Amino acid sequence: MTFSLMLVILAGLVAVAYGIVTTRQVMAAPAGNERMQEIASAIQEGASAYLTRQYTTITIVGVIVAVILLFAFGWIGAVGFVLGAVLSGAAGFIGMLISVRANVRTTEASRKGLQEGLDIAFKAGAVTGMLVAGLALLGLAVYFWLLTGPVGLGEGSRDVVNGLVSLSLGASLISVFARLGGGIFTKGADVGGDLVGKVEAGIPEDDPRNAATIADNVGDNVGDCAGMAADLFETYVVTIAATMVLASILFAGAAPVDEGMLTEVQRFMLYPLAIGGACILTSIAGTYFVKLGKGSTNVMGALYKGLFVTGLLSIGALAAVTGWVVPFGQEFTFVSAGSEEVRTFTGMSLFLCGLLGLAVTYAIVWVTEYYTGTGFRPVKSVAKASESGHGTNVIQGLAVSMEATALPAIIIIVGIIIAFNLAGLYGIGIAVTTMLALAGMVVALDAFGPVTDNAGGIAEMAELDGSVRDTTDALDAVGNTTKAVTKGYAIGSAGLGALVLFAAYAEDLRYFASKPETYPFFDGMVVDYSLINPYVIVGLFFGGLLPFLFGSLAMQAVGRAASAIVEEVRRQFKEKPGIMDRTEKPDYGRAVNLLTGAAIKEMIVPSLLPILGPIVLYILVGMVAGTAQALAAVGAMLMGVIITGLFLALSMTAGGGAWDNAKKYIEDGHHGGKGSEAHKAAVTGDTVGDPYKDTAGPAVNPMIKITNIVALLLLAYLASVGA
Amino acid sequence: MTFSLMLVILAGLVAVAYGIVTTRQVMAAPAGNERMQEIASAIQEGASAYLTRQYTTITIVGVIVAVILLFAFGWIGAVGFVLGAVLSGAAGFIGMLISVRANVRTTEASRKGLQEGLDIAFKAGAVTGMLVAGLALLGLAVYFWLLTGPVGLGEGSRDVVNGLVSLSLGASLISVFARLGGGIFTKGADVGGDLVGKVEAGIPEDDPRNAATIADNVGDNVGDCAGMAADLFETYVVTIAATMVLASILFAGAAPVDEGMLTEVQRFMLYPLAIGGACILTSIAGTYFVKLGKGSTNVMGALYKGLFVTGLLSIGALAAVTGWVVPFGQEFTFVSAGSEEVRTFTGMSLFLCGLLGLAVTYAIVWVTEYYTGTGFRPVKSVAKASESGHGTNVIQGLAVSMEATALPAIIIIVGIIIAFNLAGLYGIGIAVTTMLALAGMVVALDAFGPVTDNAGGIAEMAELDGSVRDTTDALDAVGNTTKAVTKGYAIGSAGLGALVLFAAYAEDLRYFASKPETYPFFDGMVVDYSLINPYVIVGLFFGGLLPFLFGSLAMQAVGRAASAIVEEVRRQFKEKPGIMDRTEKPDYGRAVNLLTGAAIKEMIVPSLLPILGPIVLYILVGMVAGTAQALAAVGAMLMGVIITGLFLALSMTAGGGAWDNAKKYIEDGHHGGKGSEAHKAAVTGDTVGDPYKDTAGPAVNPMIKITNIVALLLLAYLASVGA
Repeated sequence: MTFSLMLVILAGLVAVAYGIVTTRQVMAAPAGNERMQEIASAIQEGASAYLTRQYTTITIVGVIVAVILLFAFGWIGAVGFVLGAVLSGAAGFIGMLISVRANVRTTEASRKGLQEGLDIAFKAGAVTGMLVAGLALLGLAVYFWLLTGPVGLGEGSRDVVNGLVSLSLGASLISVFARLGGGIFTKGADVGGDLVGKVEAGIPEDDPRNAATIADNVGDNVGDCAGMAADLFETYVVTIAATMVLASILFAGAAPVDEGMLTEVQRFMLYPLAIGGACILTSIAGTYFVKLGKGSTNVMGALYKGLFVTGLLSIGALAAVTGWVVPFGQEFTFVSAGSEEVRTFTGMSLFLCGLLGLAVTYAIVWVTEYYTGTGFRPVKSVAKASESGHGTNVIQGLAVSMEATALPAIIIIVGIIIAFNLAGLYGIGIAVTTMLALAGMVVALDAFGPVTDNAGGIAEMAELDGSVRDTTDALDAVGNTTKAVTKGYAIGSAGLGALVLFAAYAEDLRYFASKPETYPFFDGMVVDYSLINPYVIVGLFFGGLLPFLFGSLAMQAVGRAASAIVEEVRRQFKEKPGIMDRTEKPDYGRAVNLLTGAAIKEMIVPSLLPILGPIVLYILVGMVAGTAQALAAVGAMLMGVIITGLFLALSMTAGGGAWDNAKKYIEDGHHGGKGSEAHKAAVTGDTVGDPYKDTAGPAVNPMIKITNIVALLLLAYLASVGA
Repeated sequence: MTFSLMLVILAGLVAVAYGIVTTRQVMAAPAGNERMQEIASAIQEGASAYLTRQYTTITIVGVIVAVILLFAFGWIGAVGFVLGAVLSGAAGFIGMLISVRANVRTTEASRKGLQEGLDIAFKAGAVTGMLVAGLALLGLAVYFWLLTGPVGLGEGSRDVVNGLVSLSLGASLISVFARLGGGIFTKGADVGGDLVGKVEAGIPEDDPRNAATIADNVGDNVGDCAGMAADLFETYVVTIAATMVLASILFAGAAPVDEGMLTEVQRFMLYPLAIGGACILTSIAGTYFVKLGKGSTNVMGALYKGLFVTGLLSIGALAAVTGWVVPFGQEFTFVSAGSEEVRTFTGMSLFLCGLLGLAVTYAIVWVTEYYTGTGFRPVKSVAKASESGHGTNVIQGLAVSMEATALPAIIIIVGIIIAFNLAGLYGIGIAVTTMLALAGMVVALDAFGPVTDNAGGIAEMAELDGSVRDTTDALDAVGNTTKAVTKGYAIGSAGLGALVLFAAYAEDLRYFASKPETYPFFDGMVVDYSLINPYVIVGLFFGGLLPFLFGSLAMQAVGRAASAIVEEVRRQFKEKPGIMDRTEKPDYGRAVNLLTGAAIKEMIVPSLLPILGPIVLYILVGMVAGTAQALAAVGAMLMGVIITGLFLALSMTAGGGAWDNAKKYIEDGHHGGKGSEAHKAAVTGDTVGDPYKDTAGPAVNPMIKITNIVALLLLAYLASVGA
């Protein structure tokens, strides 16, 4: 066990080492002329200042939570929480630090050519990607090893479970704040800057005369890079932790097949970690295949080549890991939920579940590409609808956004059915784990986006030759799709993992109820999750309303932040009339400070919704109908939040991507091109899509997770109260 | 029993008589000058032609369904289906006929004053309202009487249940087609006409030079009047039928308390019908209170006065009906779902459930008014956001639309908890029944809208004095809110009734399984609706995707219809250059014909989604996991379709209303008034809101119902197959 865990930890360390080496390579690249460096350092300062303030604010909330956990679960809870939070913060912060240094180097490299620009930008993204996957895996594996090794707890003990869940809470807390705060910052700057710059003053995007430009570039780094990193870190940790918790309960008590061999609990708790470790290595290998073919300009193709190689290698890695941890031919028994029938699965079944996870990932990537790529019907239809005006552009965009939920939902449905038939609930857990195991590579593709976006901005502000901007634009164009892909992937994994998260809750409860001597609070409690129980319906509706309310608050926050930026830039134009003819310089710092304050303030209330939701529902239903029904309602709430959250997040992220690319498609010369009426309509759609795809939509994913984690901790707390 | 049923039927006949008398009063009013009558008759022809074609097309589908029902359930199914379909069609068609005659009379009356215009328009709306409630009640009561009286079946027998469900299917089928077809027609004309007229040609709304004007007015009658009537007819029938079916199962076998008295089944099947009968009378009474105070111009106040009086009288009527059918002090027992604990309720409990239904209705009206009225924060915030552009208007509108789901969801949650604690599942059924019992009055408020909308159009086209248009505008202004109110009310009742519909399914299944000798197909079948069953999750996700896909198809259909109209009007402007200087007349008929074809064609595919959905899911899951799991998945699908459907429909209808009124608020002189940049942005929002609130959003309600009805019939069919 210890040896196996050490191998997993080693894989995590390899990811960190990859990060250090690759960072050095990026930093060694030339950083451009003085003007470029000046701009870049303004972005660096802004991003660091914002993230420092964001994390300071989160720390205040975090300390309160840590103290609560300390009292409720002792040091294991508090340390796990702090570990999860700190590692998540580190992944985001370091990712941002490298991203704000790679941007100007990408601009400089783009002067030489597309391949050179791609190389720097992708390397920077890959650092973030590997740090996310590596630190997440390290957090889980090291804490699990610490608790089961040196501390000497049993693998399936409640303390270990509490430790893993607390670790997840740390990651979730950072994630929901970072996604929201970063999302509000970046889209407040983007929307506000565009409105006052492009629309009102008639100056191009990223024009140095616009006081919001630096803030816009800062936003890419704190939102699309650091926020996204925190989100995926959390998804990774929560998914694997939930699969481990499930394993600890489902296979409790089973003796090892042969003496000296691992027990089932050890085996099935180790397996997801081992998959994570193996796929980090295949992800690192994949990064070396991201290269343009000779004379090719197909950037998307180059990125997909890396993803494809990672997938192919992962099949082999999965086979090796499976053969090692759960031998292919060996049979294990499990009880089928619903029918209570005892069935068996083998190592082979789990391997197939892993393959399924890979297949689901690629299917979701393909569907997202279809709905957000410029080559297909959806984006073209939005571009076409722009011809008849702003209204029809938005109508068609909304229609596309809603349609885009259907195929991913069907993929998830098929995934659930196949995985469940292969190996029950645990099989679903393994499918999602394998899906998430590719996170290193997927995040690399995504984090590449903000670097190229910044690179283009710097080229514009430094007034470099137009050809440089053309190169960075070619790199940036694929960014919309890769961003949408990551979000579809993250929320898709939440959908596929819905049952795992719910099962972790339900099985936990069943476990407590089965041991009334240890957990008197749950003595004789029978919780009915049947849809015929009205409190289940109540929970489903209550859970269902959370993503809508949360999304609404996030969109309104962006609107307010954008309005504040519009007023600030207008004020600067008025106070410094020389800005327009370039004799005076705008005060970029004020816009950054303003957004920093707004984003920090606005992120608090929506973030509290998923944290307080389960607790409020538990108390209120408990007062009316008793504890058992309250716990049924909370359980159903977890499912309700996933159902509406899944569809809302899928539609928002795909719709936003489609709007953005419809604008790009028109700018490429279709339907009248830049400056046409259709283009103006497409700009409106793009503006609408901004908070949709980069603030509200992606923040739904951590919001779903945090609701689940809080519910699990609520159970654990109730168990400890009575004990 | 027969005597009681006769009283209910009498109430239904009173509604029809009210319709005849009031129609005469409306028709007796002067119909204006020749030009006005010419315009009105063009609208009449277009509306009749469209509805005739729509109902002809539905008849083709209907005949197929009727034949299937004939083979599956004998004449009882086929006759019930035809009765439901014909009565629903009649309510819509007659409502349209009166509406297209009242419009021009309202214009003429508005020359005299606001009170005169209100009087005619509201009377026309009231005819539609009372016909909807009256014919729906008559259909249910007469068929129930026929089956249990002359045919001699037991009240709780399967044949009676099948008859009621088939009647519901008839109503549902008409409803989903009419809502969609009418919605596509009206919004295709509205959006297309505005784009090519207001935006492109720069001519005002309803300008006679726009070839789409007549079509736009036709659309109000076939969509907002006939389509809405079919929707509410269906909601009424399905809700009361489901409550009756539930009663027939929950109270089966209980003997009468005293000899000669009604059995519990008789009593509890009669009770919802009796509530419907009583509230028709209070609704009729309420209509006489819709009058402006002396010198007042508060049209909304006048309408609410009527609604308020109806509510007040309904409390008394409810008390009387309860005392008569289920005496206040008498105790009845029921089994509490979830805990299986036996509890009791009294007539008093049911009376309180009825009051709760009234309270929910008024609470939803209030919330809708808050989110769509010009006097409150949400609409003002959308108007304010229009200042910074099209994009921010749409962002804020979307945010408001999402926020607007929270309070109704909480109202529904509280309603479920209270009603369930008062009298279990049946208590929830009674709360929804009472809610729907006010349908006559609520529909009257809604159907008033298209009449005044048309009246304004006629005033514009007939080039009457501006003061007439001002009067009709004042009447029309409240129409947006009353329209939103009806939709919130209809979908809210679906949410509150979700558990009743699901329970009808689950209890039906349990009933079949409990009688294996009669229904061998269900022998030994245990269906697990627990959220831990993966097939339940599969059903929830599959149900959840239906409203999104359905909504997307509906929005795209409107987009296509609108584009076709834009091209047609452009073509006419080009071919007949004299149109603009009024020397040539546009060909209104072509636009109407074009939309007729488009709407009929486009309504088919989306309507098939909810009809085929349950059957496809049943077959697919059945192949993988057997019949019991397939039925669990179908059951969960019913809940999934309600969860996402509820939030989607609430957000679409409230958001659309808010956009529309934000535009009106700006037109009233705020934020720069008509012609300002803010106004242009608000027009975009209004355009987006059109298909949102009048096509996709409201059609979700019948689609939820039809999914439920098809599932119930699937069960009944399976029961008959094995027998």
